[in-house]
Amino acid sequence: MEFLNAYQKHIADALTNANQAKSPQGLYAPIDYLLALGGKRLRPALVLMACEAFGKDPKKALPAAKAVEIFHNFTLMHDDIMDKAVVRRGAQTVHEKWDVNTAILSGDAMLVQAYECLNAYDASLFQSLTKLLSKTALEVCEGQQYDVDFESRRDVSIEEYLEMIRLKTAVLVGCALQMGAQIAGASDKDARQLYAFGEQLGIAFQLQDDYLDTFGDAASFGKRIGGDIVENKKTILVHLTTKNGTAAQREKLAAFLAETPKEELQKIAAVTQLYQEAGADTATLEQVQQYTQKAFEALEKVSLSPEMKQRFIAFGNGLMQRTR
Amino acid sequence: MEFLNAYQKHIADALTNANQAKSPQGLYAPIDYLLALGGKRLRPALVLMACEAFGKDPKKALPAAKAVEIFHNFTLMHDDIMDKAVVRRGAQTVHEKWDVNTAILSGDAMLVQAYECLNAYDASLFQSLTKLLSKTALEVCEGQQYDVDFESRRDVSIEEYLEMIRLKTAVLVGCALQMGAQIAGASDKDARQLYAFGEQLGIAFQLQDDYLDTFGDAASFGKRIGGDIVENKKTILVHLTTKNGTAAQREKLAAFLAETPKEELQKIAAVTQLYQEAGADTATLEQVQQYTQKAFEALEKVSLSPEMKQRFIAFGNGLMQRTR
Repeated sequence: MEFLNAYQKHIADALTNANQAKSPQGLYAPIDYLLALGGKRLRPALVLMACEAFGKDPKKALPAAKAVEIFHNFTLMHDDIMDKAVVRRGAQTVHEKWDVNTAILSGDAMLVQAYECLNAYDASLFQSLTKLLSKTALEVCEGQQYDVDFESRRDVSIEEYLEMIRLKTAVLVGCALQMGAQIAGASDKDARQLYAFGEQLGIAFQLQDDYLDTFGDAASFGKRIGGDIVENKKTILVHLTTKNGTAAQREKLAAFLAETPKEELQKIAAVTQLYQEAGADTATLEQVQQYTQKAFEALEKVSLSPEMKQRFIAFGNGLMQRTR
Repeated sequence: MEFLNAYQKHIADALTNANQAKSPQGLYAPIDYLLALGGKRLRPALVLMACEAFGKDPKKALPAAKAVEIFHNFTLMHDDIMDKAVVRRGAQTVHEKWDVNTAILSGDAMLVQAYECLNAYDASLFQSLTKLLSKTALEVCEGQQYDVDFESRRDVSIEEYLEMIRLKTAVLVGCALQMGAQIAGASDKDARQLYAFGEQLGIAFQLQDDYLDTFGDAASFGKRIGGDIVENKKTILVHLTTKNGTAAQREKLAAFLAETPKEELQKIAAVTQLYQEAGADTATLEQVQQYTQKAFEALEKVSLSPEMKQRFIAFGNGLMQRTR
């Protein structure tokens, strides 16, 4: 997907060292640091892609693409504090490299900068984009809170889990696409429908992420395999093992989830095997496929040329086949 | 100032339990908790006051007043984490009552909610108010970072200190007044001039706060007297003692600032006496008066009826005479 590379270059150029000349650097350097670490930049690419799909110069959508990427990185900076994560994109997290207070304050400034990016648009577009950003931002906060709440609950249903990842991850993908469509002047119906495509695709993306955390290839995944198992995270693999497994498998899993492992590698191997025995690995891949299919059904209803639809389909299939 | 009480009642009504019906409560309850603790609510009152001064129903400014107050409380929630403060408005801080992660995430949601309040306005006004909020919010973050930076620097000048409190405290007062003026349809010149009034008044307010922390009356101030001395904070009293004191007084102060006191009350008494000997107490009050005077000069240039100007003057004088 060559167009993706072009988008990603635009975005990287727009984000690199954007705060270099500002004071105080204690506030701004951590922002440039995190943004320079890169990441896949899929969300901002979707903003540009949606804008171009509706026939407008993707450059027109660059400020909104920046807003989405800066917002996403703000959530990473604060989530990493909450998760006590030490590594992000192969480098130190901001609160590790600086300190927690820095990560709080620079994260706050990023959230404001995300809003500021939208200043580039005229009043009417500015208002609709800003409202969408606020709605999405609150939903992402809600998703993060549900994620925290679920850690200490034993009775979380699959439906609740899916709703949590919809809020925490998927709505921002929908937001990215809707913004691009709105900037290009698409109809409200098309913009909303493209949002629905992104939302379903975002759920598929997160389920795939859950899968890769256990069944991915360490070298390409970029983080160690089995992290979720060690942290006793109740991912889709846990939910599907509970749902589809035998009573014995459920009990075994519950025991694993209750323990802090002495031998991490041993636990990872044992739980991975349990997932496989219960068929949770293939069941997860089926769910990924189902949500991707739902996304494509939403896409079908958008008034776009077959060629442009094909781009989104290629993007969706690419996500499903990704190994990182 | 009876009109102030009416404003404050409107604001309290609008903010009380506003998030009661929302989920998850783990995210929203801390917001309602902090907002219910009250505070003086001077900033939102200024939004309403400015709107009414330009002849419009102050109710029209209520959403912006909420935005300003919610934004201010967001900064308190996050600043309290950074300062490890345990008490706010006589009650537990959010990170004490819940935990740091909660205070980070609920604070983030508050910042978004501040923006969302402005959704109440039409596109053109929405854009100008939102841009002002973003500009102000980044300045407040910058001010907070300078405050942090200054803790570990020994060569901070009075000018740098004043610029820090301008950013951290005063610009939001200016923002509140400018928002009210803009909502009422005041001219750009008047709105900017009223901002300048608020900015100078905000500096006076913070200098007065520095004064009251040492020379206030414990009962009416609402927090213990001498907190800044115990924490070795470089307030305006420190700066003016350094500037106006004798070499011996400067040395004595430097020694105090370098030590963690064993006997807090003893240190408070000794430093308080030192401030008085160096004349820093009266010099601070003079500065408060000077900035209030500058504020009144800015106010003079605003096209407002003498009656409405008198309200702002009464408000400014009230701040100067406050004991808490």
